[in-house]
Amino acid sequence: MFAPVYFDHNATTPLDPQVREAMLPYLGARFGNASSRHEYGRQARAAIDAARAQVAAAVGAHPTEVIFTSGGSEANNLFLKGAAATMKPGRVAVSAIEHPCVREAAKRLVKQGWQFDEIGVDAQGVVDEAAFAKVMDGRPRLVSVMLANNESGVLQSIAPLATAARAQGAFFHTDAVQALGKVPVDFRALGVNALTVSGHKIYGPIGVGALVIDKRVEVAPLIDGGGQERGLRSGTENLAAIVGFGLACELAESRRASDAACLTQLKAKLESGLGGLGARVFSAGAARLAGTSFFAFDGIDGETLVGKLDRAGFACASGSACSSANPEPSKTLLAMGVAPEMARGAIRISLGRATTDDEVGRFIGVLTEELKRLRGLSAMAS
Amino acid sequence: MFAPVYFDHNATTPLDPQVREAMLPYLGARFGNASSRHEYGRQARAAIDAARAQVAAAVGAHPTEVIFTSGGSEANNLFLKGAAATMKPGRVAVSAIEHPCVREAAKRLVKQGWQFDEIGVDAQGVVDEAAFAKVMDGRPRLVSVMLANNESGVLQSIAPLATAARAQGAFFHTDAVQALGKVPVDFRALGVNALTVSGHKIYGPIGVGALVIDKRVEVAPLIDGGGQERGLRSGTENLAAIVGFGLACELAESRRASDAACLTQLKAKLESGLGGLGARVFSAGAARLAGTSFFAFDGIDGETLVGKLDRAGFACASGSACSSANPEPSKTLLAMGVAPEMARGAIRISLGRATTDDEVGRFIGVLTEELKRLRGLSAMAS
Ligand SMILES: Cc1ncc(COP(=O)(O)O)c(C=O)c1O
Ligand SMILES: Cc1ncc(COP(=O)(O)O)c(C=O)c1O
Repeated sequence: MFAPVYFDHNATTPLDPQVREAMLPYLGARFGNASSRHEYGRQARAAIDAARAQVAAAVGAHPTEVIFTSGGSEANNLFLKGAAATMKPGRVAVSAIEHPCVREAAKRLVKQGWQFDEIGVDAQGVVDEAAFAKVMDGRPRLVSVMLANNESGVLQSIAPLATAARAQGAFFHTDAVQALGKVPVDFRALGVNALTVSGHKIYGPIGVGALVIDKRVEVAPLIDGGGQERGLRSGTENLAAIVGFGLACELAESRRASDAACLTQLKAKLESGLGGLGARVFSAGAARLAGTSFFAFDGIDGETLVGKLDRAGFACASGSACSSANPEPSKTLLAMGVAPEMARGAIRISLGRATTDDEVGRFIGVLTEELKRLRGLSAMAS
Repeated sequence: MFAPVYFDHNATTPLDPQVREAMLPYLGARFGNASSRHEYGRQARAAIDAARAQVAAAVGAHPTEVIFTSGGSEANNLFLKGAAATMKPGRVAVSAIEHPCVREAAKRLVKQGWQFDEIGVDAQGVVDEAAFAKVMDGRPRLVSVMLANNESGVLQSIAPLATAARAQGAFFHTDAVQALGKVPVDFRALGVNALTVSGHKIYGPIGVGALVIDKRVEVAPLIDGGGQERGLRSGTENLAAIVGFGLACELAESRRASDAACLTQLKAKLESGLGGLGARVFSAGAARLAGTSFFAFDGIDGETLVGKLDRAGFACASGSACSSANPEPSKTLLAMGVAPEMARGAIRISLGRATTDDEVGRFIGVLTEELKRLRGLSAMAS
C-alpha cells in the first residue's frame, strides 16, 4: 500500500499499537453486553469500569463524572442541548472559533427560543477579554470556549474565563478534544462544569469520547433507552472502543511531556523552513499546541497546494478536516480578521508521535519545489 | 479463560471472524478521517461508501437512504426526536412492547407537548388490530412498531400496519434490530418510512447502526457539527465499525436462510425439553424468531435461576439485557397480560450461529438438575 507521510493528526490519529492490542480481546472472546448479568456481562462491566477510571485520571475527574459517548461531537451536543433542555430558554455563548459541533449545536437552540452569542477573538485567535466580558454581561446560561483550536492550535486561558462566566451564573464547558495528551487537562484546575474529550485524536479508536461533567449540571439525554451511563446516554456500551479509549487516555498523559518536547523541536524546524519560503504562520504570537502549524502563502490557493502535496506523498489539510468538504474559507481565520483571499490559502500541518525529523526536512524540500512551480505559473499568468 | 456457553445472542453477538478480519486494516494502516482530502481520507471515504451499499442491499434500500449512527438506540431516537423536531406537536404512537430506546424516546416528546399513545398487544404479544385501529383514529404523526421483539422474539406483520398508519398521514418506523439476518427485512416491501438496524446484533461490531429513511421524512439531527451523513449525523465517521457493519449485513443476508434452518431445529429441541420440565413458553402461538425462547416455570424466580445457570456455565438472560439492571418484571410480558409473579420467572434463551445440538442437550440436563433443587427448596419452605 502506498503510504504517504501523515501530517494530519488533528483530523485523526493512527491507533496506538498498544491500544489496538488492548482492544483485540474485546473484538474476540471477551465480547459481551455490559448490562448482562452473566460472566460475559460482568467481564464487560469490569472492563468499562477500569476504562472509566483511566479517563477520569487523565483529566483529574472522578469516574462518576465521566459519561461515555460516541465521540467528541456527541459529547459537545450532549452538553449544550442536554443542559438547555432542562432550562428555560436564555442566552448561549460560544467563541467565534469553536468546532462546528459546538457552534452548530448552540445555534440549534435558537429554534427553541435561545439567543446565540458569539465571543470574538483577537488577531492571534485568542478570546478577546473585552468581548468576553461584554457577552458575560448578558448573563448567558451556557458558555463554551475550546481549550485548543483544531486549526490554529491556539490555546485559551480557560480557568479565568470559566471563573468569570460562573460568577455570572453560567455553566461553563470546554472542548478539550485537541488539548488532551498535548497540554495539561485538569477538570478541577480548569474550573469548568464540563469538558469534552475524544478517542481518535489521542491515538485511540474513533467512535468513542466522553463528556466529563459536574453533577450539579442537570442534563437531559440525547439518546434515551436502556438507561446506560447513569441514564444520560443509552445504548449498548461500545466495549472495545471504551477499553481502547481508557488506555489511550492513560498513554496520552504518560507520554504528554515527552511527546510535546519532540513535537516542539519538529515544529521549530518546520516553521523555520516555512518562514524561509515566505509563509505567514497564523497565531504565531499566541500559545499554541506543539504539533500544529496553520499557515498560508500570499497568492497561493490552499486547496491546490494540498492537492499537489498529496500527490507528492504528504497528507496535509486545508482548513479543518471536518469541514474540508466545504469550500468556505476557515471560520477561525475569518474570526481573526484574516482576509478571505489569504484564508483561502490556508494549510494545516499537524505532526504526531511518529513524525520524524527527516519527514519534516523532506516536506520542506517538496514544498519548495511545488511553490516554485505554482509561483512560476501565477507569474506567467499575470 | 472460562468460557460459558453463550445463550444470549439477543443481548449481543460475538463478532464474526470474517468481520473482524475486514475491520483490522482500518484499525491499522488504513486509518483516516473520511472528510480529509488526501489519500488516507479518500480511502476511508471509499470504504464507507462500500459499506453503505452493503447495508442498503441487505435491507432493500438505496444507499442514500442509509444514515450511519452509533447504534440502534441512537437510530431510534434520531427517527422519533428528529422527525418530531420538524413538526408541530401531535400524537406519537408506539407498541406496548417496544425496546426502551423507542418507548422512552417517544415519551420524551411529551415534554414538548406531544401526546403519547401506547398500542396494546394480545396475549401472544402480537399488536392488537382493534387497539391499533383505535390509536390510528387519533391520527398520530409518528408511529413505531418493532419487527421482532428482543424478549419473546415475536414478529409483527408490519406491512399492513404501515399501510394503515400512512393512510392516516403518519410516518411509520420499525425497529428491525432483532429482525435483520433472521427474517427478511425489505424496506420497500415493509412499506415503512424508516427502519433501524444495529451492528452488534448481527455478528458485527458494537457502536454502529443505521437509520434507513425515506427522504420525504424531514428529520433534524440529534448531533450537529461537521455535517457528515447528509448533515443528519455529525461526528468523524466510525470507519472500522462501519466497514465491519457493512460486511456483517452482507453475511447476515447471505446466511439468513441456513442460519434460520439450524436455529429452528435447535429451538425445537430446546422447547421440547422445556415442555417436558413444565415451562410456559411465551408467545409460543405466534410467529417468532427462530433462535429465541422466552419462558418461565411456575413458582421459580427468573433471576435466581439465571444466576444458577450462570454458575453452571450457561449465559442466559432474565428479561431483556438492556434493562437487566432493573428488577422490574418484563414490560413485554405485562403488556401480554402475564401476571407479575409469572413474569418475574422469565428467562430468555437466544441461540446463535455457533450454538450446537450438544450445548442445547447439556443445557436441558443442567436445567433439570437446577429445577429439581429449587423445587425441592420451595417444597421444603411451604
Ligand atoms: C476541537 C474539536 N472538537 C470536536 C471534534 C469532534 O470530535 P469527534 O470527531 O470525535 O466527533 C473535533 C474533531 O473532529 C475537534 O477537532
Ligand atoms: C429491539 C432492539 N432495539 C434497539 C436496541 C438498541 O440497539 P443498540 O444496542 O445498538 O443501541 C436493542 C438492543 O439493545 C434491541 O434489542
